[in-house]
Formats: sequence, C-alpha cells, structure tokens
Amino acid sequence: MEQALAAASEGLLQSIERKRGGSKLADAEIEQVIADFTAGRTPDYQMAAWLATVACAGMDMRETAALTRAYIGTTPACPIRIPGRRTVDKHSTGGVGDKITLVAAPLAAACGVPVAKMSGRSLGWAGGTIDKLESIPGLRLDLSAREVQQVLSCTGMVITGQTAELAPGDNATYRLRDVTATVDSIPLIAASIVSKKVALAAEGLVLDVKTGAGALMSDPVAAAELAELMVELAAQFGIPARAIISDMSQPLGFAVGNALEIREALEVLQGREVPGVSELGRLVARLMLQVAEPSLSDESADKCIGAAIDSGEAYRTFLTWASAQGASPCFVDNPDCLPRAARRDMVRADRSGWVAAVDPRAIGQAALRAGAGRLVQNSSIDPGAGIILFARIGTRVDSGTPLAEVHHSGSDSRCLEFAAAAFDISPAPVPAPALIQRIFSSNHEDQP
Amino acid sequence: MEQALAAASEGLLQSIERKRGGSKLADAEIEQVIADFTAGRTPDYQMAAWLATVACAGMDMRETAALTRAYIGTTPACPIRIPGRRTVDKHSTGGVGDKITLVAAPLAAACGVPVAKMSGRSLGWAGGTIDKLESIPGLRLDLSAREVQQVLSCTGMVITGQTAELAPGDNATYRLRDVTATVDSIPLIAASIVSKKVALAAEGLVLDVKTGAGALMSDPVAAAELAELMVELAAQFGIPARAIISDMSQPLGFAVGNALEIREALEVLQGREVPGVSELGRLVARLMLQVAEPSLSDESADKCIGAAIDSGEAYRTFLTWASAQGASPCFVDNPDCLPRAARRDMVRADRSGWVAAVDPRAIGQAALRAGAGRLVQNSSIDPGAGIILFARIGTRVDSGTPLAEVHHSGSDSRCLEFAAAAFDISPAPVPAPALIQRIFSSNHEDQP
Repeated sequence: MEQALAAASEGLLQSIERKRGGSKLADAEIEQVIADFTAGRTPDYQMAAWLATVACAGMDMRETAALTRAYIGTTPACPIRIPGRRTVDKHSTGGVGDKITLVAAPLAAACGVPVAKMSGRSLGWAGGTIDKLESIPGLRLDLSAREVQQVLSCTGMVITGQTAELAPGDNATYRLRDVTATVDSIPLIAASIVSKKVALAAEGLVLDVKTGAGALMSDPVAAAELAELMVELAAQFGIPARAIISDMSQPLGFAVGNALEIREALEVLQGREVPGVSELGRLVARLMLQVAEPSLSDESADKCIGAAIDSGEAYRTFLTWASAQGASPCFVDNPDCLPRAARRDMVRADRSGWVAAVDPRAIGQAALRAGAGRLVQNSSIDPGAGIILFARIGTRVDSGTPLAEVHHSGSDSRCLEFAAAAFDISPAPVPAPALIQRIFSSNHEDQP
Repeated sequence: MEQALAAASEGLLQSIERKRGGSKLADAEIEQVIADFTAGRTPDYQMAAWLATVACAGMDMRETAALTRAYIGTTPACPIRIPGRRTVDKHSTGGVGDKITLVAAPLAAACGVPVAKMSGRSLGWAGGTIDKLESIPGLRLDLSAREVQQVLSCTGMVITGQTAELAPGDNATYRLRDVTATVDSIPLIAASIVSKKVALAAEGLVLDVKTGAGALMSDPVAAAELAELMVELAAQFGIPARAIISDMSQPLGFAVGNALEIREALEVLQGREVPGVSELGRLVARLMLQVAEPSLSDESADKCIGAAIDSGEAYRTFLTWASAQGASPCFVDNPDCLPRAARRDMVRADRSGWVAAVDPRAIGQAALRAGAGRLVQNSSIDPGAGIILFARIGTRVDSGTPLAEVHHSGSDSRCLEFAAAAFDISPAPVPAPALIQRIFSSNHEDQP
C-alpha cells in the first residue's frame, strides 16, 4: 500500500510540474491521476495542487476528453432508453429562478422525445432542481435504476437525483474542487458535466449556459468558450448536443423559491406567458426535439411545442410524470395545494424611474434567508419560501410600486433587506437585456 | 474557532480566484493567507491549491516582498553580529559536490568579514552543508543563540542548523511545497530564501544560483530570473546582495560525499587547485568582501583572499572555527582522521574518447546509494561514503582510464552502476562548460 501511495504521488507531482511548465498531459497520465485519487491513493493536498494547476494552466480539447473518460473510469454505462427513440438530457449551469427543466422536459416528452435527467442539489444562492421538486408532496427522487426505466417508459420523462456511482472520479474530485476555488475552470466544468451525461448514455443533450452577474461564468466570452467546449466534447463521445448562451443578469421569470417555481412552471405549461421562462423553455424544448431528430425544422418543432401547450398535453405530461414518481393525489388533482410560507411582505420602489438592475445574487440571498435554500449543508428548507418579482430590468415604476413580494417564515427579516437591495432604479429608461445570446451546435454556430 | 476557520477559508478561496484571474494580490491579503495557514486555520488542501495557483500564475516583485514579510510574520529579528562590522551570509540553490560554503566562509572570515550562516539538511541527491559538517567528529550544529554569537565573535564565522522559529510562515509552507510539486516556483523560492536572511538580520548576502542539468533551475533564463529577483528582494529589505549564476551541468570539483567534500574543501584552503571549487570559492569570497565593503575593488579583494590561502590563515580559520563548535582534537590536529568508507571500487572508461557528460544527478544518486545521503527521511548516513571523480567534461580518456572511485560500504552495488551511467564518452573533443555564467548586483549586472 505504501509503495502504491508513493508511486501515485510521484506520478501526480510530475504531472503538476509538466502542466505548469506548459506541457500537454497524456491521456494515460490524466487517467492515472484520477484513478489514484478516486481509489484513495493520493492525499487531498496533492490533488488540490493538481486541480489548481489545471485550473490555472488550462487543458485543451484532447486533455478534457481524457479527463471526461477518466471521471467515468471503469463504471459500466447505465443506459436509460426507450427502444427506437433517442433519449435526451438537458443541463443548465444554474441560475436564480431557473425552472426551465420543469417546462422544457414535459414539452419535449409531450412531443414524443423521451427525457431522462439526473439533477443535483445546491448549496448557496442558486437553487437546484431536486430542491424545487421536493416541494411537491410525496414526489420521490431516489429512484432505483429499474424505477427510472419504468417511469420513463410510462410517462416519457424521468427526473432523479444524482448517484455517486455514476462517474466516481467526478464525484470524488467535485467535493475537493468545491473547497479549493477550482469550480470555475472551463475544462474542469465541461468534463464534470459531460462525464455524467456519457455515463448515463444520453443520446442527445441541450446545454443552457448562463452568463451575466448571476451566472457561474459571468463573462460572456468564458460562457461561450464553455458552451462550445461542451458541445464538441459531447460530440466526441457520440452525443449530439446543442448549447444556448442565455442571460442571467436578472432572475429568470418572476418566481424564485421551490414551490413558487413549480407553480410558475405549471402556469407556463398551461399557456401563461412569463418573461424569460416561456421563451427559453420553448427554445430548450425545440433544441431537445432537434438533437433527437436533426432534420426537424425550427417551424415544425415550434408547431409541435405550441400544440403541446395549447392542447394541455404538456401540462398533463408533468402531472402524469409527477404521479408516476409518487406525487400525492392532492397535488396531482390540485397543484395549488403546494406548500405556502407563513408570511408575505412587499418590497416597494422608494423612487420613480426605470428598473436598471435586479441583482440575481441579492435575490438569491434574499430567497435563501427567506428559507428557500441552505446556508449550510443539511439544513432544512421551507418549501413555500421565496420571492415573487413584479418588476424586471426596463420596467417603469413609481415610488411605492410593488417590486417584489417576499414569502417567508418571519424568522430572518434580512430577507427583506436583501430583496430591496437587489433593485436599482434609474431616472432614465433602461433597455431590457437580450435573453438568448447565442446558440451553438457541433461545428457551427447559429445567431438567434 | 470554527468561525475563524470559515473566515480563513473564504479569504483564501477569493485569493486563489483573484490570482488565477490575473489579479495582483494585496500585501494584506498575502499576509493573511500565510498567517492563517501558519496558525493552523487553513487546511492543507486549500493551502496546496493556493501555492499551486501562485506557482502557476506567478507573483511580481511587490507581491514577492509581501510574501517574504509574511513568512517572517511577527517573529522578532535575531541579529547575529560583531559591532562595527557587516556580517554576511552566503546561499547556494544547491548542487552535487557543492562545498563552496566551506571554502568561501573561512576565506571571507580570514579577510576580516564575519560570516554567519544557517544551513539546511537535504533529502535526495544533493547533499546539504549540515550533513557534510556532521562527518567531522564532535562538531555541533545545534547551537543556542548565545553560542552562535560567541563562536562568531571568537572565530569570525559560525555555521548552524536551521530553527523552525526563524521564519515560521516559510517553515510551515515549505513542508507542503515539498509534497505538492511547488518547489520550483521562482517567487516562492526567492521569498523562502530571503525571508530567512531577513529574519537573521544578515547585513550582506551572496547568492550562488546553479544552472544546468544538476540544478533546481536547470534553465539558465529561469536561474537568471531567480538571481535577479533575490538580489532586488534582499535590497528591498536593506540587505546589499550579489548573485552568481554558476554551472551545475557536472558536479563541482572531484569529491562528492560528506567527509570526502570536507577533505577537498580543506585542500583548497591549503592551496590545492580543484577545478570549479577553487575558482568559485574565491569568487564567492570576493563578493562577500564586496557586499560588506562596496568600495573594495576586485583586485584588492582577490589580493586579500590569495594571501589568506598562501599564509594558511584561511585553513587555520576553518580549524579554529570547527574547534569552537566542538570538533574533536583528533580532527583539529589531524583532519585526515575523517571517517572513511569500508570499500573503494573504481569505475573505468569502456572506450576511448572525450568525456561529454558527467551527469550530476546520476553521480548524486550513486553517492546516495553508496551511503552518503538519505533515500528516506531519518535514515542514517555513512559519512565516509561518496565518489571521487577523475574526469570532467572535456577530459581525454582511453579505454580503462579511471573515471571515478566509489567509496561505499558494499551493501548496495547499484552505486557502481549509477556512477558508470553518469559518464558519456564522445569520439570527438568536447569543450568544458563555463563555470561562471553571470554576476548580478542590485540594479546592474556585470559579465564575468
């Protein structure tokens, strides 16, 4: 064991020096580093130095693909599919108010494209899809492999929590990246995301890469680089992929908070137009149809999606799916039975003008303190807590106009201060930011 | 305590992100990172990520000076001096056969310039001065502060082992750098070396930066960068400094191994001309005189040094100093009583030609396996073990000519293989490499 440890360390230290010196790392070298760490043969401090060096010096496409393969390791792929159809997945880099999965997945499924998605939890100001879904009474997100397959076959969609076995190398590494400031490295992010899609044997992938103040990649150039890298990386593993660069300079839609976001997603599926959510949800669904069937035109896809909303089919798909995953009849019969927070307080404009900023991080912090998220791991969530926004960038307001309603338990009044501080009101008109900035697909890029 | 830990982590993580993003770190930020780690408020894996990021992204002069100050922290300076005279120090980045301290220190002391030096041990193929001196029977290297001052006052020179209290930040960090492949970063090396000189309140400093295959900085451009940085850094802390870039493409002199090197240094002090050792020893001594007295001309300095050898004063200074530090009368009366290894075996040329390479790392490995160094920490050393070289780069040899004599215990015959493998013999003549490549002093550089 000690000899194996020494050999692992020596290889890792050489790899750090080579990477810092500007060399490209060999595929076998990357594989060995990840295998050694996953098997516990490398101490955390040495792996931290390797990750920090890679985050600093970067990796090219070939190295990133090797890292992706290394993350998966020798775990057999776990395909979830319906014979004769391409099962697609959708991934967002995360943002405040991002409930797009809950809109796009039922839309795609209602149009006949099976959607299998493994979602994550979150710590901090941006909520995870799993936390949102847990506000639905009875809904189970810890499905067995057999249940995943059953739900997909019956309803055309399935959403479940992540399991550590899927990409063990990524799982081991992610924990350390989180505490060493090596999360925002483009090749490390790309390999982490794509490795899980490859392990799940996704047959199509749509990536929603956020940019702007509330995004992991706030810089649009970095966001575009990440999007392009992930599309090419997925293609190398045989997964047709498309990516969107979308705006996260303000929260997506009006609702922020678990049950509030479920309610908003259901309203969009019933035909309500919600700024950001409706447009992005339909675009993601269109791209999901197109990665499953590349010859499908934009017009045909949009027609199918429009019909799925107008006919109520998408809304029914959501409820059927929720029911298949254990949602209580109370919710399925009457989604309005979702939990509500004990108190509601309004934040109003303190002057007249145009809304110049709705800082997503401040709104996220406000929702967090209202009870919608976790300040520390394992703390409990108030599923009804959150924020309903009434104004977006560019909205004309008068002094006293409602800006946001904070749904909270009353235990931490700073949620109101954070919500108020998120808004900036300008004396001159402010243009609304463009929601969709770019769309990438393998080897070419479309402007929206 | 947990809050202090969390605050330390947050600051450190921001610092990693800032450095990776191309920002300069503020003085207070660097101070906090080092203070937090030294006080145990930062886990090893986070500090490893910080060090790896700094090693990768670099630091400018101002940041390196802040790191140097941070390494010293709040420890009061520990001045060792003789009133009215400047006490100088000498530092080498280390190499195989490097016994220059043992030549230059008695030369400078014999010329009236007090020399106070704190030396390190070594692990691996390049021996440390402390290990070499320990082969002298009775010599003590664990002097108290009072003894250090006494020995210096009485003999004009003192050499002692390093204490952890001197630059606690450097001490804590060095341990981690050693196991995270972050040793060969120019700003990290410079801050580590200069912090200890500042903590000791050195009043003059000569740096011998090695370059070539056997050096930490094998690349001459990197070696020059390190030399220039350390000279400027020392000047910022009020220490006049000069630096030499010297060749380490082959071992220095003929002797490699602890007692063998002591014996060679004594021979040089008695006037024997040993290639590399005589020239570099006299040059380092000259620069030591000149940092103590900047107006001293090269000619005057060299005259004094020549006289110190010819009169036997430098040799006597070494023996008086050794005696003051506890060397047994047996050694002082007859230095030839130094320990000898049990066996001697000759390595001979297997063909005729010119010596094209004497790989210092291979010779270091041979000496290590002969018993002269430690393969693992705390293992014991055979003080008599090592290698005596008979050929240097450019030497004409015939098949069967002795190349090196290996002094060993007979327990590990690979020492002979390593010694033989160090030599490369070319059919065509090979020029000898230049020993002294460049000399730097504050704000200007002289060509030798």
